[in-house]
Amino acid sequence: MVKIGIVGGTGYTGVELLRILCAHPHAQLCAITSRTEAGRPVADLYPNLRGHTDLCFVEPSEAALAGCDLVFFATPHGVAMAQAPALLARGIKVVDLSADFRLRDLDVFAQWYGMTHSAPDWAAKAVYGLPELNRADIQSADLVAAPGCYPTAVQLALAPLLAAGLVDPSDLIADCKSGVSGAGRGANVGALFAEVNDSFKAYGVSGHRHLPEISQQLSIAAGTPVGLVFTPHLTPMTRGIHATCYARLTADADLQALFESTYADEPMVDVMPAGSHPETRSVRGSNQCRLAVHRAPGSDRVVVLAVEDNLVKGASGQAVQCMNLMLGLDESAGLGGIGLLP
Amino acid sequence: MVKIGIVGGTGYTGVELLRILCAHPHAQLCAITSRTEAGRPVADLYPNLRGHTDLCFVEPSEAALAGCDLVFFATPHGVAMAQAPALLARGIKVVDLSADFRLRDLDVFAQWYGMTHSAPDWAAKAVYGLPELNRADIQSADLVAAPGCYPTAVQLALAPLLAAGLVDPSDLIADCKSGVSGAGRGANVGALFAEVNDSFKAYGVSGHRHLPEISQQLSIAAGTPVGLVFTPHLTPMTRGIHATCYARLTADADLQALFESTYADEPMVDVMPAGSHPETRSVRGSNQCRLAVHRAPGSDRVVVLAVEDNLVKGASGQAVQCMNLMLGLDESAGLGGIGLLP
Amino acid sequence: MVKIGIVGGTGYTGVELLRILCAHPHAQLCAITSRTEAGRPVADLYPNLRGHTDLCFVEPSEAALAGCDLVFFATPHGVAMAQAPALLARGIKVVDLSADFRLRDLDVFAQWYGMTHSAPDWAAKAVYGLPELNRADIQSADLVAAPGCYPTAVQLALAPLLAAGLVDPSDLIADCKSGVSGAGRGANVGALFAEVNDSFKAYGVSGHRHLPEISQQLSIAAGTPVGLVFTPHLTPMTRGIHATCYARLTADADLQALFESTYADEPMVDVMPAGSHPETRSVRGSNQCRLAVHRAPGSDRVVVLAVEDNLVKGASGQAVQCMNLMLGLDESAGLGGIGLLP
Amino acid sequence: MVKIGIVGGTGYTGVELLRILCAHPHAQLCAITSRTEAGRPVADLYPNLRGHTDLCFVEPSEAALAGCDLVFFATPHGVAMAQAPALLARGIKVVDLSADFRLRDLDVFAQWYGMTHSAPDWAAKAVYGLPELNRADIQSADLVAAPGCYPTAVQLALAPLLAAGLVDPSDLIADCKSGVSGAGRGANVGALFAEVNDSFKAYGVSGHRHLPEISQQLSIAAGTPVGLVFTPHLTPMTRGIHATCYARLTADADLQALFESTYADEPMVDVMPAGSHPETRSVRGSNQCRLAVHRAPGSDRVVVLAVEDNLVKGASGQAVQCMNLMLGLDESAGLGGIGLLP
Repeated sequence: MVKIGIVGGTGYTGVELLRILCAHPHAQLCAITSRTEAGRPVADLYPNLRGHTDLCFVEPSEAALAGCDLVFFATPHGVAMAQAPALLARGIKVVDLSADFRLRDLDVFAQWYGMTHSAPDWAAKAVYGLPELNRADIQSADLVAAPGCYPTAVQLALAPLLAAGLVDPSDLIADCKSGVSGAGRGANVGALFAEVNDSFKAYGVSGHRHLPEISQQLSIAAGTPVGLVFTPHLTPMTRGIHATCYARLTADADLQALFESTYADEPMVDVMPAGSHPETRSVRGSNQCRLAVHRAPGSDRVVVLAVEDNLVKGASGQAVQCMNLMLGLDESAGLGGIGLLP
Repeated sequence: MVKIGIVGGTGYTGVELLRILCAHPHAQLCAITSRTEAGRPVADLYPNLRGHTDLCFVEPSEAALAGCDLVFFATPHGVAMAQAPALLARGIKVVDLSADFRLRDLDVFAQWYGMTHSAPDWAAKAVYGLPELNRADIQSADLVAAPGCYPTAVQLALAPLLAAGLVDPSDLIADCKSGVSGAGRGANVGALFAEVNDSFKAYGVSGHRHLPEISQQLSIAAGTPVGLVFTPHLTPMTRGIHATCYARLTADADLQALFESTYADEPMVDVMPAGSHPETRSVRGSNQCRLAVHRAPGSDRVVVLAVEDNLVKGASGQAVQCMNLMLGLDESAGLGGIGLLP
Repeated sequence: MVKIGIVGGTGYTGVELLRILCAHPHAQLCAITSRTEAGRPVADLYPNLRGHTDLCFVEPSEAALAGCDLVFFATPHGVAMAQAPALLARGIKVVDLSADFRLRDLDVFAQWYGMTHSAPDWAAKAVYGLPELNRADIQSADLVAAPGCYPTAVQLALAPLLAAGLVDPSDLIADCKSGVSGAGRGANVGALFAEVNDSFKAYGVSGHRHLPEISQQLSIAAGTPVGLVFTPHLTPMTRGIHATCYARLTADADLQALFESTYADEPMVDVMPAGSHPETRSVRGSNQCRLAVHRAPGSDRVVVLAVEDNLVKGASGQAVQCMNLMLGLDESAGLGGIGLLP
Repeated sequence: MVKIGIVGGTGYTGVELLRILCAHPHAQLCAITSRTEAGRPVADLYPNLRGHTDLCFVEPSEAALAGCDLVFFATPHGVAMAQAPALLARGIKVVDLSADFRLRDLDVFAQWYGMTHSAPDWAAKAVYGLPELNRADIQSADLVAAPGCYPTAVQLALAPLLAAGLVDPSDLIADCKSGVSGAGRGANVGALFAEVNDSFKAYGVSGHRHLPEISQQLSIAAGTPVGLVFTPHLTPMTRGIHATCYARLTADADLQALFESTYADEPMVDVMPAGSHPETRSVRGSNQCRLAVHRAPGSDRVVVLAVEDNLVKGASGQAVQCMNLMLGLDESAGLGGIGLLP
């Protein structure tokens, strides 16, 4: 059994890590830290875990995590860059679910996150944790930056087209819809039930922090800087992201075959039959990303639909997938859960 | 008081017509027909109307509607084209909420609706009922085709840009999200609560009946055929449409000023301040369409956000707005309801 | 036009007062105060009001409200008892939507609300604002305590049975279900969408602040102290209260006839036909309370079902109903809105 | 591996059986029948199962099921009584999720289900499948009637009190709230999203088919006929039942201790700490029933709160729990899934 710690486990990505790790066949959860909840059983905060773990939150400290093989950071940005280096120096591997190590250009980081990066050496060594695009590097990494929820869906949708050189990289649109759990468990008026139920809206149209991350990664996939319009929307559901991605075709190809062959050996990506419309509920609670590729009628546009559970493949499930790779376990271990439908 | 009839009032656009007309200061509801519910008080089927109307459904017949000044058809496609001509011949004005008279090219109609049009003369005379683009013609019309829900939002979002020649008409995208009431009150599995709650999906990506309607109307606004990608999505909410529209700018302009001046005198269109993100709930139950115009960061794309209540400005409210114009009433009469928020 | 002020209008009962008063035929909204939002247009905070009011929030002060005929307090408990007396001394009538003046026994108030009452004289003079039970007193009152949301539904459901002496007053159960807007617009984790969506729970089973209010009022109706079990539940919907009330019959009677005659002349209470099951959506946005009375099969229990919109008949609509009575207006003025269904 | 068949697997209890059995360590799913979907891959109808099973629906026939050790009936009432006897005669064990074998008194069955029972011999031999109350009989049964969703929650809540003789058996109330998936996957208007979203209502107050089942079982637990008022309500959520059960105490006892000791060794029942309010989401997708026991303030009433997932512990999970017992497997095999929260 590998020994695992979690820093900052009181938010939604934290409880989702707990749900996955409690049922993981090869992982032993050793410590979970929280300054505000220290001493409290995690199953008291999250009653779904009653009977599955006796762990209590502990005060954050290096000592608490010293015996771990790998530690997850499920913290707001700024925490992992401050605390992870000490763990890494002890030989403990780290998967960071926050944004601290996702961006290569630290000026861009400073611009979007409003703080100077305090661990630029580790930022340079960090590996971007999207296994489908980056598996080998993850396997040998000490520090992995788990991707954002929107970036995961958009990359899996658009990377095959960009890598194959079939679309104009300067003209990409990702119109994305997220469930409200993506806003986190912090007490803010905008995420109240009575504010978002039975309503729909866009947000951050003039700029969202996932834009530079997606652009960086799609540019890598394309081998050239991309032009991207990214529009996130808030949807009255708890979990789920639906990305509707538009690109202009510059060459003819069998798009269905391209996607099927690209992801043929991927355990966590499911290319649906031609003509399909994936539903977010089909991946509720599962680590799958489901894709469908369409040609817009009477147009040279390809439309790729991607769904994922923002808390699983978009966050904690993907982080465990990276953990499995980093520790030499079966990549799918603990991640075989079937989507809860209905 | 003008005398009003409704054909086929058991669906959601029917009950919404009733809700509006029961409170209309100048309209008297005289007859509402339904083959399946004849004899039943409408307030029995729709208890929100208890105390507001004593009307009962009656069997469909010309006689039932003979005394009306204007008749609404809230029926599936195919009904109005069969029954409206007889009423029109008696001098009764008609507003059709179905698709029968929206498309100018009857071959296109036949292709998308799977039936030959049976009233081509009236189809040629019908006026498209979007007052903001077509007010004068509506005022003098005998037969008005009330627009579809998606087409209303998309036209109000994109027409100003096309009319001003500021965007490339061949490269338009309308990514639209609708509440489930848009699917109607028919018993179908796909609209069950347990099928659509807490989930999100696209549908009809390879072709939806509102595509030819929107293309027709945007081409009129642009003065040239447009190229449009239209992607509808089903959202787990009851009412509301959110259109996220993308166009490529071909000239510089103050877009905020353009939208504000275009709609300055329009009682039913509200251009929000720069940087806004309209929510569908802000128009829940109201006849307003709220718009916000954004420039995508680092891009030549304009993004226009439009929200409406699909049953009001997207259907029954707009139909009453047309009725008001056709009968010489104040255009806003009965349509001043404030959106129900939260 | 009567001149109206609102103290503390940023919460949900505040925006609902605004929605009703903006459309009220005889009321002019003169001032709305908020310490946190002073200077901001109310339509900026609540975009549904755009085009309906130009009012801005102002700093709370007596001067701001000096010209009003009547002032509503839509504030947390403790505010009205501190600020209302000065207004009352100027001859301004007050309707308090908080709990400050609902309880007759100030020891009970202190016990449940954790503060000593600072205006006991006014507490003694305050009139409980449930028009159906208390109309004459409201008409002549200077200070009205608008009832809580749960107490309104439960009283309208059980008072007829208690007043008629048909049930055992010592054995009453009110199992109540509320939408989440009842928790207010404050930022608290428990009311987040991701916490309450697609889930259901009881709360406050060991004691809820509405228990002493309901007990006090039912005891008045019964003429003897009642025994009441009150169980509130949180329901994943925005608006609406459903009270399921149980009482043991001690005499035979035509219960349907009793309810119909009790409420025959009441504009805001609708007794549905025998066998009905009222839905909360039938009163969404309306000031109606709908009731249905059932005899449990094989039992001496009567089951009364009551639905209301917690923000309208359960709060702001009822407060305006009281305002109408206090100022000699038509009791139903501004309150004729039809429930928004679907 | 035991060999399992499912008759009628297209409904929600069917897909839930599939979700559980696909991940069951000791069960092999051999056949699933459906007249309407024969030939179609089950993963085509339920995309959450893509990658987890290649099974296709087959025409119902004895031959299709001949090799099974146990067959589930997930069919409307009337089917199992007609088809199960032939399978039982071949030595195949049967778990029926429908109502066919739940009621001991076949006159009562006929009265509530409108049909004469066609297999009275098997009805007499059938074992009621609530393991917590009936484990030994289930272990040796050939035919098990899986309980209804409401009856499971109400029995687990009230049986300990009745068995201990602490409450008046003639005065029980079960006020129950169910998610909409309980209405099944049939196309009916009343279960449409736009009909039930953001609304709440009671139904069947004058009589519901689960009333005789609950009464029968509680009478067995009490050792005397009980008097029960049962009120079901429809809640705008997909999964979950919340039972709020009221009983009058006739003796003093430590109720918390009673419940904790009663269920101390039960793997599927979780008695929460005193003062708790269980949420349905804490058991979403899990086979747990969570209970909390309260004393109503100032009253001799005990209030027991019970939550379950109506499709798991209320249907398919419980059916698999029975299967495990009948086939000598670990009772919890395949049922360890953690509730999906948020």
